[in-house]
Amino acid sequence: MPGKIANATLVESGKLSYGWARTRMSIIERIAKGKRKPLEGFRVGFCLHVTKETSVLVMAAKELGAEVALCSANPLSVQDDIAAFLHGEGVAVYAWRNETQAEYKKCIRDVIAFKPDIVTDDGGDLHYAAHGAKARGIMGGTEETTSGVRRLSALEKSKKLRYPVIAVNNARTKYLFDNRYGTGQSTLDGILRATGMFLAGSRVVVCGYGWVGKGVAAMAHGMGAAVTVTEVDPIKALEAKMDGFAVAPLEKAAEQGDVFITCTGQTGVIRKEHFAKMKDGAILANTGHFDVEIDASFLYRNGRSVEVKPNVECFKFGGKKLYLLSKGRVVNLVAAEGHPPEVMALSFANQLASILHVAKNHASMEKKVHPVPESIDDAVARLALVAMSVEIDKPTAKQKKYQRG
Amino acid sequence: MPGKIANATLVESGKLSYGWARTRMSIIERIAKGKRKPLEGFRVGFCLHVTKETSVLVMAAKELGAEVALCSANPLSVQDDIAAFLHGEGVAVYAWRNETQAEYKKCIRDVIAFKPDIVTDDGGDLHYAAHGAKARGIMGGTEETTSGVRRLSALEKSKKLRYPVIAVNNARTKYLFDNRYGTGQSTLDGILRATGMFLAGSRVVVCGYGWVGKGVAAMAHGMGAAVTVTEVDPIKALEAKMDGFAVAPLEKAAEQGDVFITCTGQTGVIRKEHFAKMKDGAILANTGHFDVEIDASFLYRNGRSVEVKPNVECFKFGGKKLYLLSKGRVVNLVAAEGHPPEVMALSFANQLASILHVAKNHASMEKKVHPVPESIDDAVARLALVAMSVEIDKPTAKQKKYQRG
Amino acid sequence: MPGKIANATLVESGKLSYGWARTRMSIIERIAKGKRKPLEGFRVGFCLHVTKETSVLVMAAKELGAEVALCSANPLSVQDDIAAFLHGEGVAVYAWRNETQAEYKKCIRDVIAFKPDIVTDDGGDLHYAAHGAKARGIMGGTEETTSGVRRLSALEKSKKLRYPVIAVNNARTKYLFDNRYGTGQSTLDGILRATGMFLAGSRVVVCGYGWVGKGVAAMAHGMGAAVTVTEVDPIKALEAKMDGFAVAPLEKAAEQGDVFITCTGQTGVIRKEHFAKMKDGAILANTGHFDVEIDASFLYRNGRSVEVKPNVECFKFGGKKLYLLSKGRVVNLVAAEGHPPEVMALSFANQLASILHVAKNHASMEKKVHPVPESIDDAVARLALVAMSVEIDKPTAKQKKYQRG
Amino acid sequence: MPGKIANATLVESGKLSYGWARTRMSIIERIAKGKRKPLEGFRVGFCLHVTKETSVLVMAAKELGAEVALCSANPLSVQDDIAAFLHGEGVAVYAWRNETQAEYKKCIRDVIAFKPDIVTDDGGDLHYAAHGAKARGIMGGTEETTSGVRRLSALEKSKKLRYPVIAVNNARTKYLFDNRYGTGQSTLDGILRATGMFLAGSRVVVCGYGWVGKGVAAMAHGMGAAVTVTEVDPIKALEAKMDGFAVAPLEKAAEQGDVFITCTGQTGVIRKEHFAKMKDGAILANTGHFDVEIDASFLYRNGRSVEVKPNVECFKFGGKKLYLLSKGRVVNLVAAEGHPPEVMALSFANQLASILHVAKNHASMEKKVHPVPESIDDAVARLALVAMSVEIDKPTAKQKKYQRG
Repeated sequence: MPGKIANATLVESGKLSYGWARTRMSIIERIAKGKRKPLEGFRVGFCLHVTKETSVLVMAAKELGAEVALCSANPLSVQDDIAAFLHGEGVAVYAWRNETQAEYKKCIRDVIAFKPDIVTDDGGDLHYAAHGAKARGIMGGTEETTSGVRRLSALEKSKKLRYPVIAVNNARTKYLFDNRYGTGQSTLDGILRATGMFLAGSRVVVCGYGWVGKGVAAMAHGMGAAVTVTEVDPIKALEAKMDGFAVAPLEKAAEQGDVFITCTGQTGVIRKEHFAKMKDGAILANTGHFDVEIDASFLYRNGRSVEVKPNVECFKFGGKKLYLLSKGRVVNLVAAEGHPPEVMALSFANQLASILHVAKNHASMEKKVHPVPESIDDAVARLALVAMSVEIDKPTAKQKKYQRG
Repeated sequence: MPGKIANATLVESGKLSYGWARTRMSIIERIAKGKRKPLEGFRVGFCLHVTKETSVLVMAAKELGAEVALCSANPLSVQDDIAAFLHGEGVAVYAWRNETQAEYKKCIRDVIAFKPDIVTDDGGDLHYAAHGAKARGIMGGTEETTSGVRRLSALEKSKKLRYPVIAVNNARTKYLFDNRYGTGQSTLDGILRATGMFLAGSRVVVCGYGWVGKGVAAMAHGMGAAVTVTEVDPIKALEAKMDGFAVAPLEKAAEQGDVFITCTGQTGVIRKEHFAKMKDGAILANTGHFDVEIDASFLYRNGRSVEVKPNVECFKFGGKKLYLLSKGRVVNLVAAEGHPPEVMALSFANQLASILHVAKNHASMEKKVHPVPESIDDAVARLALVAMSVEIDKPTAKQKKYQRG
Repeated sequence: MPGKIANATLVESGKLSYGWARTRMSIIERIAKGKRKPLEGFRVGFCLHVTKETSVLVMAAKELGAEVALCSANPLSVQDDIAAFLHGEGVAVYAWRNETQAEYKKCIRDVIAFKPDIVTDDGGDLHYAAHGAKARGIMGGTEETTSGVRRLSALEKSKKLRYPVIAVNNARTKYLFDNRYGTGQSTLDGILRATGMFLAGSRVVVCGYGWVGKGVAAMAHGMGAAVTVTEVDPIKALEAKMDGFAVAPLEKAAEQGDVFITCTGQTGVIRKEHFAKMKDGAILANTGHFDVEIDASFLYRNGRSVEVKPNVECFKFGGKKLYLLSKGRVVNLVAAEGHPPEVMALSFANQLASILHVAKNHASMEKKVHPVPESIDDAVARLALVAMSVEIDKPTAKQKKYQRG
Repeated sequence: MPGKIANATLVESGKLSYGWARTRMSIIERIAKGKRKPLEGFRVGFCLHVTKETSVLVMAAKELGAEVALCSANPLSVQDDIAAFLHGEGVAVYAWRNETQAEYKKCIRDVIAFKPDIVTDDGGDLHYAAHGAKARGIMGGTEETTSGVRRLSALEKSKKLRYPVIAVNNARTKYLFDNRYGTGQSTLDGILRATGMFLAGSRVVVCGYGWVGKGVAAMAHGMGAAVTVTEVDPIKALEAKMDGFAVAPLEKAAEQGDVFITCTGQTGVIRKEHFAKMKDGAILANTGHFDVEIDASFLYRNGRSVEVKPNVECFKFGGKKLYLLSKGRVVNLVAAEGHPPEVMALSFANQLASILHVAKNHASMEKKVHPVPESIDDAVARLALVAMSVEIDKPTAKQKKYQRG
């Protein structure tokens, strides 16, 4: 098999991880179930984080008949055992942990050189590389992230988009669930793995009350913490208040918090003036995408840090100790394992169904960014319910008529 | 003062109710505060439920300088003491409890005859009457409800809308709060007032997981009940499941429920086949707008009912007793007092600010249905926070720049 | 039938209330079920609050064969329709609403004159009267309340107790449930009926974190309120904190609360200095047994009060308005209906089973205050589970052995 | 310094861990604060799990003036870096990871040879060894665990107890908190670290509704899981039901659970017949003290297991996969870090205050097992509140009088 990986002897470990994830992601299998190789004759190029969850998606595409190549959407996040397993299963894998930037780009080019019919990307780099190569032979693609969609929409706007792309990010079965519940759980999981701190009786300050903040606040409270929410948007602040949480400006909340969790998507949220007011022993964690929400650079500039536990650095500042987790990087990925597989299953089910949709309908699809068809979104939700053994009602004929008015 | 009311001697009682509501609705006063009679010279015609909450809005308009007339948006719901109080304060009130249909229409015509510059309606009947009278002299209006907005949009579509209208219903500070929290609380309040039933340890079946269902489910659980949600929409069903509730088809839930609460906006939700499976002693309540969600007519046709307590009727059916609350009509209004004043304050603050907006800007507003300006929505949220003594953060210059990208 | 009631024409109304309560208290019937008149030949004298729940207990005793007399445990709380119903069913009822103190005592003497074999009391007045009459012919009794038990224990100590009494109050199926869940719900119910206030987003201050406070705090939070607990006991304060609530001295909490609920069993909990710090519009409710927890007399001495709604009095104090509910008397009984019947069923099931126990075993019981036999406590719990269709596990032989060590 | 440890070069690592724990356990320091070496002249022998939390207690005793020796309460659980750190600080440490049984006993004898005045034990082995040596010179001691207390009470009963011992286990500030909140959190933490499973939307079956079960159920629910409780005690089952949980026999719950958590203190709780009914992919975790709650030996006898992740073994059984965590051993200790330091602080504060009490009062204490003095229990709660910056009220003189009756 062509490809380039770090260590082929890791196959068995990768296989176990794949098997575990597959058990937790049965929605994916259910999409494939009963279908007769609808991807036969298609070549699919993937650029995704090379994790156990991704292996489930890639293997499903293969089982549906596709020939498959894979590179990593991030040079640092590759699970080498997963790469080894997939390569062993006949996937053209070009990915290893800690690729250089040049290697990272080369891997993407290798996937393009594989001549995919369909490209599935996380971030847009593969789509950009495809366009650099004039997108020769590419029928269509899918994109996982908001930022990737933004880049593709820019291409569309300037009439340069060369194939139709389905924006998986906007599926309701993705965005309604993975931020609130997935990030909610994994953020607390990351904080507990790093610190072992006691949540019951603590004061958790949640900065930002979007979907992620809502999930984190609800779960922290569910573990026995008192929660204070900080917001800049008055309507979100009002929601937090009516959900029973304390709401305060960060300057006041800073004095009370035992742990601070940023979930804003903003920059410079926790700053010098807030550090100055914090209690001795306060813990700082970020779960937003970028590491700019806590002004970690201020801390690094203003004092020596000591790593007291893995992912926990202690700063002395103003006569007290502050603890920064995972250098202010997204704590659920760095200190825990990111979204649980059951949540990734929702978004990857949309991916797989969208790939099948492109394979079938690419000829009639306009060269633009398409939303996930409602029928797919709906079907993914139904499969998720089936996976949980949940049945629901069907509207009666009379109700359908009533609804139409 | 012109007008027609039931009983002028009820002034004192109405004044007390007004005073109580006003205390709970300080947002309204805050909107008026510091302003110098911006409604002076304007005549405002209101068609609203004549309740203590409405009296706060109407009095605020008066204090801002308006001359005011009022009729009822429903012939059955008038609080006669409120009508007496407002009339005593110089409002041209045309409203009394249990108007006939002809009287109801006459009252609306009386308000039109008052020659309002601005009309504020709940349901669209006043707007329709205004258009019947060619909307002479009317500068603009506001509308409280979805169904009123639907009627006005139809007028707009057929180019017959004669003045600009602001659709208060669509303000985020209205729809995000009054269904979930307001109806959530008042529904349980209605059930407790009617039955005194014990929620802890009971199984509450919530039909529908829209905003109302979400509120009812969360609060019923918060009182110690176990909750089963029924849905026809798989995505909402998935949300209910991930919020920790049991989800089942009604046919199965019917066997387990101690109390059933319909919140669907649909028709024929709880039917014969469900009654047949219920436990002895099951309680049936509807909190949807119309009384069609529980098939009460089936129960009435198939057995004698006995009123065992006010708002609680017992039906013998299939060897067991079922209890229907408030004849299947909206239980939070019939058995309790509807939305708490603090919640009505949010929607009436939008009303008042929209009236002020129309008074100031009507000349430049197109003759169509307008959303509540974002600045009003935002301001209402800020005032609600002030009323609760809640402060929030402001974005920094750097953050504003970051957000723009 | 001998007896004295207010109004015999209220029979039908009483019968409906009885029927409703009976449906909600099926545990009582389950205790009687399958038994063959074990109380035949016994005369039982009851001194209880004459409510719909009591009628279920009294009727059950009758159906088990007893001859029954009843007077009221409180001269003010008699439901006259229930008295009429029971009298119509052949119970010697001596009770009407608003008895004078002399009438109250006469009614108790009438029940003693009925020559009961067994006496069931709520407070100890009937037991005292029985002892005054030398307890001639009385085989044994039961007592519902803590204070009654205290009086009886004093008798026992001084060797004056003339018959065995079972202290129902100490059954786990009573005290674990009726304070936490029963008072929890009915307290909020009372506050909502009186005020209609909006709990979501409000700050509820709960004074005291015993069983009642725990129930009130959990449910208030479950309705969307933020809760602050005040305590004098550091261990209870620590529990409140670890349950996720804010904990503060009342002096600080006074500034923040929208509603204050006393559940301490103490005197003078909310005082002048606290009133002085409260927000305009604060609401004061007591759910402790006696009306001494809020210093209402201070309020009455220091200003004119106006009743703005039933059970809501407004006081002007220090330039702001404070609202006192039900004159500081127990809000769940005055403004709502007290414990739900499902909760009373637990305590009355212990009563009924204890009466049966006394009837069977009085000869061998010592003349002292006995706890409810564990087998009864256990059986009541099992019946409550059956009433809720809940099955549980049985320990295996191996587990029984393991437990013995 | 005398003593025997594994690796003296681990000092720095141990020091960091100690520093971290100390920050989280400020109650301990607060007990010592302001005191002038009250343990000067005393030799204290400790037999405890050699963890970061223990190091905080031991160092505090040292700072209060004591000379200190330490051995491990368990031959497998020693943190070698902590042992190295304490030894470096002048503690006579006799402890290393994976001691043989003979070495374990020798270490205990070494601590006895150190001639302690006071002995602090976890399990009773040190007390037994002391008695074996006729307890020469020992003034008194303390004991952490229930089982240790049981052994000492047996000694007392047979008049063989040679010095007074304080049973720390029975302090309310210990047992009210460490099971419910400490084990509650760490159990979920262990399950998440092992599996990364998604709690929201899952069905968690909690076997046993004692303090541990109550904590686990509340927190699992707080993370978004639906919870089913199984019980053999009808009163606890009723509590679970009224707390809003589903209650069912394990045989039924087995069909629905995604994860099963045993918290019973019993043996053979989850057995063959339950495994047979479980869903494919079910996860089995035990958090009871002994590894007998899940019948793991049945699984091991009946199929090959594969470790799919650390602490996760997969068994194929009846055509499906079951996952057993940490071999059925206590999951919060094996897969996570046991009680958070903030919780250990409560129990070790009782230890330290009890040691001080013995040092001061041993002469007047009877040679029996004493409860922790209420004043200590109370003081620990107060210090815990101070550590959380929580203030509470004091009873007024009037209230004190009222309480006395």
